[in-house]
Amino acid sequence: MPDDRFKIAVIGAGRMGTVHARNAAAHPALELACVAETPDGSAATLADALQRPVAPFSAALADPAIAGVVIASATATHLDFALAALAAGKAVFCEKPLDLDLARLRAHAGVFADAPLVVGFNRRFDPHFRALKARLDAGEIGTLETLSLISHDPAAPPPGFIPTSGGLFRDFVIHDFDMARWLMGEEPVEVFAWASCLVDPAIAAAGDVDTARIVLKTASGRLCTISSSRRSGYGYDQRAEVYGSAGMARVDNPRSTTLEGWSEAGSAAARIAGGFAERYAAAYAAEMDHFAAVLAGEAAPAVGHAANERALALAEAAGRSAQSGAPVMVESV
Amino acid sequence: MPDDRFKIAVIGAGRMGTVHARNAAAHPALELACVAETPDGSAATLADALQRPVAPFSAALADPAIAGVVIASATATHLDFALAALAAGKAVFCEKPLDLDLARLRAHAGVFADAPLVVGFNRRFDPHFRALKARLDAGEIGTLETLSLISHDPAAPPPGFIPTSGGLFRDFVIHDFDMARWLMGEEPVEVFAWASCLVDPAIAAAGDVDTARIVLKTASGRLCTISSSRRSGYGYDQRAEVYGSAGMARVDNPRSTTLEGWSEAGSAAARIAGGFAERYAAAYAAEMDHFAAVLAGEAAPAVGHAANERALALAEAAGRSAQSGAPVMVESV
Amino acid sequence: MPDDRFKIAVIGAGRMGTVHARNAAAHPALELACVAETPDGSAATLADALQRPVAPFSAALADPAIAGVVIASATATHLDFALAALAAGKAVFCEKPLDLDLARLRAHAGVFADAPLVVGFNRRFDPHFRALKARLDAGEIGTLETLSLISHDPAAPPPGFIPTSGGLFRDFVIHDFDMARWLMGEEPVEVFAWASCLVDPAIAAAGDVDTARIVLKTASGRLCTISSSRRSGYGYDQRAEVYGSAGMARVDNPRSTTLEGWSEAGSAAARIAGGFAERYAAAYAAEMDHFAAVLAGEAAPAVGHAANERALALAEAAGRSAQSGAPVMVESV
Amino acid sequence: MPDDRFKIAVIGAGRMGTVHARNAAAHPALELACVAETPDGSAATLADALQRPVAPFSAALADPAIAGVVIASATATHLDFALAALAAGKAVFCEKPLDLDLARLRAHAGVFADAPLVVGFNRRFDPHFRALKARLDAGEIGTLETLSLISHDPAAPPPGFIPTSGGLFRDFVIHDFDMARWLMGEEPVEVFAWASCLVDPAIAAAGDVDTARIVLKTASGRLCTISSSRRSGYGYDQRAEVYGSAGMARVDNPRSTTLEGWSEAGSAAARIAGGFAERYAAAYAAEMDHFAAVLAGEAAPAVGHAANERALALAEAAGRSAQSGAPVMVESV
Repeated sequence: MPDDRFKIAVIGAGRMGTVHARNAAAHPALELACVAETPDGSAATLADALQRPVAPFSAALADPAIAGVVIASATATHLDFALAALAAGKAVFCEKPLDLDLARLRAHAGVFADAPLVVGFNRRFDPHFRALKARLDAGEIGTLETLSLISHDPAAPPPGFIPTSGGLFRDFVIHDFDMARWLMGEEPVEVFAWASCLVDPAIAAAGDVDTARIVLKTASGRLCTISSSRRSGYGYDQRAEVYGSAGMARVDNPRSTTLEGWSEAGSAAARIAGGFAERYAAAYAAEMDHFAAVLAGEAAPAVGHAANERALALAEAAGRSAQSGAPVMVESV
Repeated sequence: MPDDRFKIAVIGAGRMGTVHARNAAAHPALELACVAETPDGSAATLADALQRPVAPFSAALADPAIAGVVIASATATHLDFALAALAAGKAVFCEKPLDLDLARLRAHAGVFADAPLVVGFNRRFDPHFRALKARLDAGEIGTLETLSLISHDPAAPPPGFIPTSGGLFRDFVIHDFDMARWLMGEEPVEVFAWASCLVDPAIAAAGDVDTARIVLKTASGRLCTISSSRRSGYGYDQRAEVYGSAGMARVDNPRSTTLEGWSEAGSAAARIAGGFAERYAAAYAAEMDHFAAVLAGEAAPAVGHAANERALALAEAAGRSAQSGAPVMVESV
Repeated sequence: MPDDRFKIAVIGAGRMGTVHARNAAAHPALELACVAETPDGSAATLADALQRPVAPFSAALADPAIAGVVIASATATHLDFALAALAAGKAVFCEKPLDLDLARLRAHAGVFADAPLVVGFNRRFDPHFRALKARLDAGEIGTLETLSLISHDPAAPPPGFIPTSGGLFRDFVIHDFDMARWLMGEEPVEVFAWASCLVDPAIAAAGDVDTARIVLKTASGRLCTISSSRRSGYGYDQRAEVYGSAGMARVDNPRSTTLEGWSEAGSAAARIAGGFAERYAAAYAAEMDHFAAVLAGEAAPAVGHAANERALALAEAAGRSAQSGAPVMVESV
Repeated sequence: MPDDRFKIAVIGAGRMGTVHARNAAAHPALELACVAETPDGSAATLADALQRPVAPFSAALADPAIAGVVIASATATHLDFALAALAAGKAVFCEKPLDLDLARLRAHAGVFADAPLVVGFNRRFDPHFRALKARLDAGEIGTLETLSLISHDPAAPPPGFIPTSGGLFRDFVIHDFDMARWLMGEEPVEVFAWASCLVDPAIAAAGDVDTARIVLKTASGRLCTISSSRRSGYGYDQRAEVYGSAGMARVDNPRSTTLEGWSEAGSAAARIAGGFAERYAAAYAAEMDHFAAVLAGEAAPAVGHAANERALALAEAAGRSAQSGAPVMVESV
């Protein structure tokens, strides 16, 4: 019964830290060695629940038995923790975004090139979107022409979240920018965005918007539309439709159950997922699968610094477009 | 502008008579020559609405310009009117059933053999079920093994209807017996039925049942289940599922519109048809297409006396089974 | 049997003229008095098929018994025919567009104000979109925030059609501009469009585009995205999704039948409509219902000159945006 | 970090043993203490994969630290192992069936009354069917009248499996008999079954059938139809439709993904589950949740000896009906 699992440490014991720690603890190829200390004491709670020890992050980095680190702490700490972990020779899984500052991200491009870093753009690991991507790659809809992404959060975040969020485009639509790049197979070169504050005036008061429609254009003329909203009122709406020369493929929202009720008024189907934890549960588990494969040298990181930089560049361009009212060329690095 | 349309007369100005008269009046190959007189005066109302004359039925039969007759009068009159019309050399479209008395139906088998008679088993003309039948005939599900039919009326008929209806099996399930024969491509040889009165005690008081599950078996062991109810509470439920050696094909209920509403609770789709007039509007129109084709000599009657006799024999067997509690062999003629 | 139907004449015996003539001929409140002569002789064929006479258009206009005229001739003739018919005291149903020249349309605004003119923006008469509109009007999704329209033709038109079509925006997307105005309940004030030629190089050679994504913005910040393509490869895709403060409502594509096939690979559902004639058959019939109601004084025209002018103004603004690459303010008249 | 998880042992390291062992190992409230030895050596493989020790079953029973036992060994051993484990004071989760011999099952009724035994009728733990049951219990479809169950295996088992399987009714349809009892809320008192061998002649040669339609009747006249097949050809078809006085509720098959492809032919949706392991993965996990709750004294066993006895009695009655061709009254104990 020799244990050949990869020992890993998790830092960050909030919502995403808990998700990753639980998945790591249950993963046959990973061993959750410890939960790293955080000032707020949440590490202890999480560690207790999983029957694992708490350790200082520095101790985890110094432990040669630990092969990898999962970073799910506050966004502002991601970049420094990732740099420290890589410097200590650990493989890193870092929640998205690696950083919200494009210049700072670019300043470290050299360090991150070829680094064993996976950034948690979770939608790429979702089985529904993966099946879509596989179909596109197999040429089943011919040449891709246009793409529509819908990403509506169930309910607006508390206004206190907005000021440190990075804003709608860098915090939320960044997922769609990553999806657009991934699915289109061609870089967007120009971005247009219109945005409004229709959901919550407190969001406008905090200097942000809550509703946007964005269009991306590639050099060959491919077009992608993104519909973004901080509040759907009907659940976590996450869909994609891809149009090609030989047809269309799309991913719809999974339902909580297949139960239907029928009455005089018609039929009622079950709700879709109420939030990201439910919608992307399988994706988060697949992220740990992928991280284990990276640790085992069986896979190269599927999404890292470069993808994060490109998505953030699109988010910044969209933000500038929404402010100026004109399309914005996407800066190449 | 020579008029080469076939002149036809309609007798019966109730619900089905009105449907057929309107379809005939709008049909490019048919001319509604007259509506035949009925004692209750309803003929005049229908004729007025369609700007056509009223005439005695005997006059219509005597008019050599009239090529065909549509019979949609009271069930008890169908057989006599059909016999008279055929004797007068007319082609006949007769609402189902030709008669509710199996012995009387059989007594006239000779007259009806090869007669230009179409009996209005409307489901055979429905575009959805036709597409299903075409798929079965094309072998797309391999060898047919079993079949499930669901036929639930939206709401129970007024109790006054029950005593003259012929009972659940002969009045309502007869459609399903016809469908089973048509789709299975093999005669059922044995019938089992359990029936209850769960919907309306007035139906039990009138000596009938309102809820039944029937199983049919063919000589080769194919099985068909029929679910029948006088009241669904959610519309006119008319479905079929056919299972074969290479897969399954099924027909679902069309919806009134494709409109969906989404809320926290889930999604709500539009109601299905509220009754036969809405559900089978296209089928009734297709019946007149078929009758026109029969008049033109372009088609043999798709469903006539023999099919009606077989379906009624199954209905009688089912009724006997429901009473005795044991399977009943289907009498062959 | 007094005939109190409204006598109407149809001019134009092409595809749409045939649709309207057949619907008028079958309509209980309309009498197709004649098909007006056209130089190509197609009037005679249509008239023969419907057993109606052919007459010069001028004779139809001079006939005091004729109450209304349906104009379905070549687009370039619509405006003059409509003006002539109105001058002769007839009510007019005119296929869309009334004219492709915005200046000319505006020049006649005075004549058309309050005129008994219905312009055939057929989607407004579609039962699916009508149900959606009714739901929005009933406040069931709260305050409308954003809207997504998808309108993809099944296959690109022959290249010879492009030069006289008016271009993608004025010929095809004009329907969506009308839908956007109708559903949003607020005028778009600014338009952004990106367009590509991805489907057929012959369309580019003719100076047009075949693929576009358009965004509309209203004064209050409501946003509408339109996805337009000359070729879907999977049928006539016509959908709408409306997002509001209390949920979402959407209209999906009707299917040709409800038949499904199941195999190892999954389930296969029937195709959607193959083109406008099939998709909007009920809408075209409803147009004649509405025209009959206008003739009877029971309804005011639901869509006329002003709506056509607004939709065309949006189309022109979109065309200019697509050329300049910048958003365009919509000219108010 | 005190470990207050319940220590359990698993016996049986085949397909179901592996499923339960993995779920137990990952469960926050359970600790998989050991995998019990089996003569074929499969215990070692499973134990190694999960980094747990192998132990003789007798040692596990003798270990006072072990609170519960999961029995997933060969069917013939279930009853003896369960008796031994209960005698040793352990709580027991036993794969269905507890035994295939109705007389033997009944002989031990006294021992099992109030015993901490959960029998793995997995469908009761499926989130889709649970949601259905909750809806029925909430009265949302009014009074239950009829029920339709569909249970088709994807592909016929190897012929070698048939002789020891107990036959179609006791091996496979037993699940549906349990579902029928659970959902109807009233005991079936009479059973009718017709069965054929249409899928594989080797099954007939082994004295069994592969295709059946069963009808159940309760004292109040409620009816339930079961459609059973050893081979669907399109996946693992597991559905339920429940009809009541106020509407209908149904559970459909979950799909592997929400991906759809659209082409000229129509739309293609993803396949349903390919077998029980995929279809009921969440149910098996929920079984361990329930077992943990039983161990914690927070729940009484949801399904035990009595339910197994009733389902087996229905299976035996169905088998006799299929042989005799007549309905069979269900023996009450």
